[in-house]
Amino acid sequence: MTKLNPQYRKLPGSYLFSEVARRVAEFSQSRPDRSLLRLGIGDVKGPLAPAVAQAMSRAALEMGGPQGFRGYGPEQGYPFLRRAIAEHEYWERGADISPDEIFISDGAKSDCSGIGDLFGTDNTVALCDPVYPVYVDASAMAGRAGEYDRDRGRWTGLMYLPCTAENGFVPDVPEERADLIYLCFPNNPTGAMASRAQLSAWVDYANANGSVILYDGAYEAFISRPELPRSIFEIPGARGCAIEFRSFSKTAGFTGVRCGYAVIPRELEREGVSLHALWSRRQASKFNGVSYITQRGAQAVYTPEGWAQVRAAAAACLDTARLIREGLSQAGLEVWGGVHSPYLWAKTPGGLGSWAFFELLLERAGVVATPGAGFGPGGEGYVRFSALGDRAEAVQAVERIWAALG
Amino acid sequence: MTKLNPQYRKLPGSYLFSEVARRVAEFSQSRPDRSLLRLGIGDVKGPLAPAVAQAMSRAALEMGGPQGFRGYGPEQGYPFLRRAIAEHEYWERGADISPDEIFISDGAKSDCSGIGDLFGTDNTVALCDPVYPVYVDASAMAGRAGEYDRDRGRWTGLMYLPCTAENGFVPDVPEERADLIYLCFPNNPTGAMASRAQLSAWVDYANANGSVILYDGAYEAFISRPELPRSIFEIPGARGCAIEFRSFSKTAGFTGVRCGYAVIPRELEREGVSLHALWSRRQASKFNGVSYITQRGAQAVYTPEGWAQVRAAAAACLDTARLIREGLSQAGLEVWGGVHSPYLWAKTPGGLGSWAFFELLLERAGVVATPGAGFGPGGEGYVRFSALGDRAEAVQAVERIWAALG
Repeated sequence: MTKLNPQYRKLPGSYLFSEVARRVAEFSQSRPDRSLLRLGIGDVKGPLAPAVAQAMSRAALEMGGPQGFRGYGPEQGYPFLRRAIAEHEYWERGADISPDEIFISDGAKSDCSGIGDLFGTDNTVALCDPVYPVYVDASAMAGRAGEYDRDRGRWTGLMYLPCTAENGFVPDVPEERADLIYLCFPNNPTGAMASRAQLSAWVDYANANGSVILYDGAYEAFISRPELPRSIFEIPGARGCAIEFRSFSKTAGFTGVRCGYAVIPRELEREGVSLHALWSRRQASKFNGVSYITQRGAQAVYTPEGWAQVRAAAAACLDTARLIREGLSQAGLEVWGGVHSPYLWAKTPGGLGSWAFFELLLERAGVVATPGAGFGPGGEGYVRFSALGDRAEAVQAVERIWAALG
Repeated sequence: MTKLNPQYRKLPGSYLFSEVARRVAEFSQSRPDRSLLRLGIGDVKGPLAPAVAQAMSRAALEMGGPQGFRGYGPEQGYPFLRRAIAEHEYWERGADISPDEIFISDGAKSDCSGIGDLFGTDNTVALCDPVYPVYVDASAMAGRAGEYDRDRGRWTGLMYLPCTAENGFVPDVPEERADLIYLCFPNNPTGAMASRAQLSAWVDYANANGSVILYDGAYEAFISRPELPRSIFEIPGARGCAIEFRSFSKTAGFTGVRCGYAVIPRELEREGVSLHALWSRRQASKFNGVSYITQRGAQAVYTPEGWAQVRAAAAACLDTARLIREGLSQAGLEVWGGVHSPYLWAKTPGGLGSWAFFELLLERAGVVATPGAGFGPGGEGYVRFSALGDRAEAVQAVERIWAALG
């Protein structure tokens, strides 16, 4: 009889966003009259930048002609895209990353979870609490999270790094040793951003302990001050201890197009083995590259028109975030984030649980937020709002929240 | 210090097709005068069917407009595509598969390897020998293959099912119990096709032993006789023991576009757990769906024009296969396959090793084949030729082989 992966049995429930979607669908069915305003899942509203849409449209037609057709591409991505990323995302910031250290993928979610394949199950994983649930789920599925303690909502084998209002939602370096450290700045879900000094402390810690930092920079496009580090590779020493994940999802509206990349420096090794070589091998056996059409679209992000269009979209999103922040504050909520991030992190009023506040917002205001507890025990008592959606809807949503709480 | 996945250390060398590419590049560099004819890797030559290219081009532009933009799609695929697949690939063949049993993915390679995540490491994996290397590599990376025995070119923990000229390259059901069984028909690399009776024997075996069949039907489009089973789900009892993988890569020229699907019946369970639910959970945490643009392209395969175009391409490929088969026979080689498959499987002449014959073909004829030994110990003494490329080149290649061996 075929045996199942015993780790899967330990997973407490459905994936957070599937659960939110389920509850929202249930509500919509019972209250078809109620219009819903969605500030929940971090999806973008689009449209795609014209330069990007046109590049993909052209590439699709190109594939329909004998001269332009492309079959299997290079598994790690087309040189035209790897080069454009190196130049615009790294060299312009003084980070020394070569195109062949960039692995094009179908998105940061796949990379953040797939990277675990390279490591033994006997590594201690540290992660922010609250945190993007994929790091936890992937660690648990791989058998690196221990057991799930339902009462406490915690995995026994994970090292939770508390992110609280007191530390500005940027975790301090722990006393104990962690082997794999997931960091994400600008943070999902809290919207917090780490300073250069804070990231330096993590890089020094990782180098001292032989740890590997798994740095999720999916929200980098929203960093609004130039002195803040946009990449872990702007920090001296990071090439010896870090892997970075990036995505076009939030930067360029690619949530429905699927493209991201992982950056693994050539000299990064553990046990004398190059992680760059190991990831190449893993990808060659378990992945087959990203659509040529998609890669042409991503490349177009770096044309002058494409860049102007995606930067304008990010600025508009940050302005929506400002309106939400102000609106929620006026409604009496305590709010963080939304300055270097499309996410806002709000304390629930009156000590409400986060799922309870989620239900309250849904029922009284018709607004979908994401319950903080879905991001881990440290998220209890908070909800996340996303500014990635429509501006007018966001304005209406905060008005409704104001009315509902007033 | 971070510990690596100890299984990765056991992998004998680079991924087969990367190694072939490396040797070909080396040869090209030393002999820039020599034109190469590629019958090696199973890549397609295209172009994409016009209906497909146009559908993707339109979808890209649609995403550039506020009305047509789509963000995160349903993780398991858009209903329009799942429905089209159910109808055209299954219902028309009398196989009872519902759209929600179809999981759209970025290709069969990702699915064939990713599916292993659902199972414990203590399952015995059975696979054809020779075989598509991804099943072996993924099993080894997951720790299900035991140790690699370099002298014998075999993994100690895998159950190899001999596929030989004697059994027509269709393996017999073994005496021992296997838990996970990879089957692929039409077969890569041998081109062999299994009959309904042969597949029935495997389904009965799996149901008797509680095994799960992982059925790779990536080459189904090339089956040229209607009475042959195009899906494992045409076999009674398969819904209780099988998962099927399909791909648009070879069917519709999607090697560079990336789209495939996995089919998991709702009632398939082990240890009382639904594999359908488990795969849904896995995909929600480790994958984020396929590009909307790509899914519109795949849907267009099922329009009357799209279908006519892809069927014509498959017929042309089979005709190329016939020319290669006849040419190789005339050159004195013993050849199988190429009837229900784009692949031909040829015995090396004079007892040559398969890498030696690969080198001979490269050097004397400027023809790239794939060495059979790359597909496992049972492939030693064979090479694989692919008819997926250009017809004129294939004709020229067999002429050159004829001259080189004559």
